[in-house]
Amino acid sequence: MSQLFMFEKPLGLRDTLPDLYETKAQVQSTIAKEIKRWGYQFIETPALEYYETIGTASAILDWQLFKLLDHEGHTLVLRPEMTAPIARVAASKLLNEDQPLRLAYSANVYRAQQKEGGRPAEFKQIGVECIADDTVSADGEVIALLISALKETGIDTFQISIGHIRFVQEFFLQILGTEERANELTKFLYKKNYVGYREHVNSLSLSSIDKQRLLDFLKLRGSEEVIENAFALIENEKGKESILQLKNLWKTMVDYGMEKTLKFDLTLVSHMSYYTGILFEVYSDQVGSPIGNGGRYDLLLQKFGKNTGATGFALRLDRLLEAIGHTANSKPALCILFSEERRREAYQLGKEKRKQGLNVVLQDINGVKQIDACTSQYEDITFLIGKAGRESDK
Amino acid sequence: MSQLFMFEKPLGLRDTLPDLYETKAQVQSTIAKEIKRWGYQFIETPALEYYETIGTASAILDWQLFKLLDHEGHTLVLRPEMTAPIARVAASKLLNEDQPLRLAYSANVYRAQQKEGGRPAEFKQIGVECIADDTVSADGEVIALLISALKETGIDTFQISIGHIRFVQEFFLQILGTEERANELTKFLYKKNYVGYREHVNSLSLSSIDKQRLLDFLKLRGSEEVIENAFALIENEKGKESILQLKNLWKTMVDYGMEKTLKFDLTLVSHMSYYTGILFEVYSDQVGSPIGNGGRYDLLLQKFGKNTGATGFALRLDRLLEAIGHTANSKPALCILFSEERRREAYQLGKEKRKQGLNVVLQDINGVKQIDACTSQYEDITFLIGKAGRESDK
Repeated sequence: MSQLFMFEKPLGLRDTLPDLYETKAQVQSTIAKEIKRWGYQFIETPALEYYETIGTASAILDWQLFKLLDHEGHTLVLRPEMTAPIARVAASKLLNEDQPLRLAYSANVYRAQQKEGGRPAEFKQIGVECIADDTVSADGEVIALLISALKETGIDTFQISIGHIRFVQEFFLQILGTEERANELTKFLYKKNYVGYREHVNSLSLSSIDKQRLLDFLKLRGSEEVIENAFALIENEKGKESILQLKNLWKTMVDYGMEKTLKFDLTLVSHMSYYTGILFEVYSDQVGSPIGNGGRYDLLLQKFGKNTGATGFALRLDRLLEAIGHTANSKPALCILFSEERRREAYQLGKEKRKQGLNVVLQDINGVKQIDACTSQYEDITFLIGKAGRESDK
Repeated sequence: MSQLFMFEKPLGLRDTLPDLYETKAQVQSTIAKEIKRWGYQFIETPALEYYETIGTASAILDWQLFKLLDHEGHTLVLRPEMTAPIARVAASKLLNEDQPLRLAYSANVYRAQQKEGGRPAEFKQIGVECIADDTVSADGEVIALLISALKETGIDTFQISIGHIRFVQEFFLQILGTEERANELTKFLYKKNYVGYREHVNSLSLSSIDKQRLLDFLKLRGSEEVIENAFALIENEKGKESILQLKNLWKTMVDYGMEKTLKFDLTLVSHMSYYTGILFEVYSDQVGSPIGNGGRYDLLLQKFGKNTGATGFALRLDRLLEAIGHTANSKPALCILFSEERRREAYQLGKEKRKQGLNVVLQDINGVKQIDACTSQYEDITFLIGKAGRESDK
């Protein structure tokens, strides 16, 4: 192979070395344990799916999909997220008599990146989906589980922003009249570009009252009081309904004793176009982008022939590790360096130490080129070298 | 999407449903724990690699590689195995001063399949690589670790067949004279087609003594005695050297007290073309194909600029689960069914039960369409329904 390529990896793809691997494994295991405690069952789906099935059902932009052709000429994609594959499995295999179904996953997802971005093209998501339960209790449960799992990881500070996509849609439609104009204004919210939003609002031919209401919309961020303010701004029934759902959600979170981690942000929208109701993002002070997100998607399962809704969250493990900040130590505690004459003795000692729970390297001294460089790697070394057995040392 | 494709997955790709997922997770965790106890450190490499780097270095047939083009026109492959990626990482980032390096992985690998085969195109391998240690102790260690890890999983019966690829090469070359003729005969060994092998030998223009030796070669399967028989058959130095290595390996395994799980099979060859010395396969009575394999590969790291050898094993988790035979139960133990009035009480009870280590579903009764079908899923149900609190029931 050419020198150029020898050590290279494709754009956005990374190796995970031992200490980071161990940290990741510990955090993942902690979260998975909590998810199972809440009665969710883990499943795994293939990394490759048909483009026609999952590529089109997922909310990821087409250019971000890794596509390939199979031997039969079908286009495949590397799964760009897990919600659509879980919906496929639930609809086809698990969803009997529309019973509520609690599923979880821990899986790598794949999104092609641009050269400048420096973003990972492969990252692990761990998440849950609560399917076929249309109560606000279900929305509250996934948020409470998210909080509970994050607390288990030992992360200090994080905050969950909660919005309602239906409220934004209804509010914009009420004032702007057409979906086209509503979508145009929504674009500023995707980018959290509030300056651009204000400029755009001021450029519209609207009554000054309507303009003011669109500007007041930006203030719908904060605690419980946001509910009343939003209720005052919205006029139509569907919009009011979504605010009542948020009010109920707040009460649920108070029942969990978890309302302090929440704030409302009714300007919240998502690139995940399948959301239809309550949606949320998780932030940590240590990381610039959300470490997780989620929400209700009541139409996605229809694409797989089931007329039922669902809600869930996904955590990004890479960003969560950034928020946690410290890494584990993966180095074995002890190295037993032996020569052939005392091999059996070394094996015995290794076995005993491992039984005591230590991670132990057994190293034949003939395999070592530089003894000092070798031994300096370990905290603790035991030498079993030369003919003398322990007994004969007495 | 079309009805045809709605629930379909690409050829050889499968969903792993909750009970199997849980079994897989438990077995994987057991093996990983034992691997770490032996001082190996886990790493992760990307699912996608450059074709020029990993596609050509790995020993998997070209048509089995899943290939795709990235946005810059480079050909990428889904990793078909883990040894080549680990060699890349070791050579580029971890191998300092040629110190012995013990790495491990637990990762899905991808191999395109033919329609008729029914084999999985994605499966999990868990394995180790012991790098830059050229002693037979290193070969012995990976085999001993393999045995130790398998015993931890509770698998009843398994056997490890041990061969030496150099011995086969030297023996065939000694008698047949050319690599071409040696390769032709080796093909029968890949398929374990001993009838075909005998017919082929009988069709060759060789002395009856040489024919008899080639036929006697097939008998080099069994316990310790195979060593002496093989030593008598082989004439050249390199061939004799490989037998002395096997003799030393046997002594090592006796020192581990693990020789009973081994048998020699000097007819063993491998599709993994990078093996250069001792190699082995793991069999279980319950499964038709090897559940694992491994061996020494002393030239692979040269492809990444390091003049050092290595040895390792890979277990196939799907086949191992087949050998283990039983599956875990992933169902939560308790469901607490509540109505809104008693939500807070339900949350409290759920929290307590989870603290006791139970997996608990909290279910709002408004989210359930058929109560009986819902409750029949769980071993244990607690109802917290209606206005009456527990106290008022007295």
